[in-house]
Amino acid sequence: MDELAARVRAGDRRAVARAITWVENGHPEKDALLKRLYPHTGRAVRVGITGAPGAGKSSLVDRLVGHLRRQGLTVAVVAVDPTSPFTGGALLGDRVRMQAHATDPGVFIRSMGTRGHLGGLSRSTQDAVRVLDAAGFDVVLVETVGVGQSEVDVMHVVDTTVVVLTPGGGDVVQAFKAGIMEIADVFVVNKADRPGAEKVKAQVEAMLDLVAHDTPWRPPVVKTSASRGEGLDDLWQAIADHRAYLEQSGEGRRQRAERLRRDVLALAVARLERRLAACLEEPPFADLLAKVQAGAVDPYAAAEALIDGLLRDPDVHPRCHARVEEEV
Amino acid sequence: MDELAARVRAGDRRAVARAITWVENGHPEKDALLKRLYPHTGRAVRVGITGAPGAGKSSLVDRLVGHLRRQGLTVAVVAVDPTSPFTGGALLGDRVRMQAHATDPGVFIRSMGTRGHLGGLSRSTQDAVRVLDAAGFDVVLVETVGVGQSEVDVMHVVDTTVVVLTPGGGDVVQAFKAGIMEIADVFVVNKADRPGAEKVKAQVEAMLDLVAHDTPWRPPVVKTSASRGEGLDDLWQAIADHRAYLEQSGEGRRQRAERLRRDVLALAVARLERRLAACLEEPPFADLLAKVQAGAVDPYAAAEALIDGLLRDPDVHPRCHARVEEEV
Repeated sequence: MDELAARVRAGDRRAVARAITWVENGHPEKDALLKRLYPHTGRAVRVGITGAPGAGKSSLVDRLVGHLRRQGLTVAVVAVDPTSPFTGGALLGDRVRMQAHATDPGVFIRSMGTRGHLGGLSRSTQDAVRVLDAAGFDVVLVETVGVGQSEVDVMHVVDTTVVVLTPGGGDVVQAFKAGIMEIADVFVVNKADRPGAEKVKAQVEAMLDLVAHDTPWRPPVVKTSASRGEGLDDLWQAIADHRAYLEQSGEGRRQRAERLRRDVLALAVARLERRLAACLEEPPFADLLAKVQAGAVDPYAAAEALIDGLLRDPDVHPRCHARVEEEV
Repeated sequence: MDELAARVRAGDRRAVARAITWVENGHPEKDALLKRLYPHTGRAVRVGITGAPGAGKSSLVDRLVGHLRRQGLTVAVVAVDPTSPFTGGALLGDRVRMQAHATDPGVFIRSMGTRGHLGGLSRSTQDAVRVLDAAGFDVVLVETVGVGQSEVDVMHVVDTTVVVLTPGGGDVVQAFKAGIMEIADVFVVNKADRPGAEKVKAQVEAMLDLVAHDTPWRPPVVKTSASRGEGLDDLWQAIADHRAYLEQSGEGRRQRAERLRRDVLALAVARLERRLAACLEEPPFADLLAKVQAGAVDPYAAAEALIDGLLRDPDVHPRCHARVEEEV
């Protein structure tokens, strides 16, 4: 583990890949590794890129990677793909495009699906970003599909979130309804070479006019054409402007503090959840669960009993606890 | 609380509305109320209806409500709307259509946004469905936008999940990528009066052919036109078929048992999370958190310390515990 941490810090690609696999699979020494890497994080520029399926996020990320490489910056991409276990990952074809960068040592690309991920995809993403940050990448891009709650959670790990819209990609009002407003720091109207791009931009601006902002930052709306490689300078400038705003306003510091509070809480909750799940497989809680399933006990009472069992008398249920100690 | 429970069980609409508000706002007596109502749940047919924004779910639900009412069934609708706090609910206009049923005592409609919801939207939805079940509604429809992880969580509360697609509503392959396969028990191709409906149906069937099923149930694909009121018989029949399958195969029983296991675990985790969040606001954990925020302690170590503090010595941190007891 010490050796792996040292190799990650040296930027060894195979070590980075293995560390992320540890993160994904919940390797027993995962937390020890992350603890070791943690002091070396905090330097990477962390940018999230999200939007509906078909908005051209992958192409845009591909182009942005090329743009950043031409400026001499190293780039890691975490592509969070919510492909269901049902489809077996057969639809990951669009990742193939990224192979343009496959031989570039300054680029690291990793797809993360929904499989595995003890503790959830946002946990794994958070930890993978830390691994990449510790490995010394200048920029870490987190690409994710959609704008649901899970994407919002994923976006808590980045400093700047870019929401990608397109002409003909669906009603802007509908997109706003889907909850993208609270996570967007920068809007991109991609496929800006198509008709209607200016209209989409105007619609977003109008929506932004309509709502009250609780911070002085108003998300800029940038037009890009990933297929033509246009608008990348403007996009990167908007991201840099947001970054400058975060630092100058103190908002970045506030967000980092809140993110760490959430993180400590989430880590503690995830561990307790594993303990409780293990408890439910052992007497006396397995019997209690069976009673709930038979309709003899309600789940609210069972949850109380489970907590009391865990908190009040850790020694009364040694098998349950022993089991968990092993696992954790 | 006893009186409220009795009035909910009698189907009193104002009591039902108040009980759901308790659920949403985390009222101190919420759990006591739900415990009281729980023995009277389990009779309602619980159906989830989900799909991308713009698929016409609200219209379809509206029509389905009318269809069920003509059969003499009472219906409750929980419309889970992920409208962000940012937009302030101003975009809820499509709910207005449902006012056709506003004066019908056999119909109850409730929108739930993302505001509030101590413990999360899926928790609130679960509890709201239980309230409506206990109030004696024959059918409870849960309508939700999108197919992200949060919608998957919401759908754990229903027996049958209907996924709504449309011609021109985006590539079916993209929809499958977004993870809808594992939650769909029935597919609807809505707006079937438009060109391309048969093609969408064929695409879904082809996707279903491609993948291996882990149960003998193959989701049927039903065409509807909410605007013309067509296909509702077929849709309700598909839902009834799925329900019959669940009962005859034992799959329904297995799913209910697993749902209750998740529920006990989620309830216990939510309570512990509240305790831990409160702990982080009090010494000594507030100081520990400040050290994490200053970079002196890593979040992994802080999470361990937090758990140890809670589990090992509940009496060492009486203020933290006392605070929580009050709240819970």
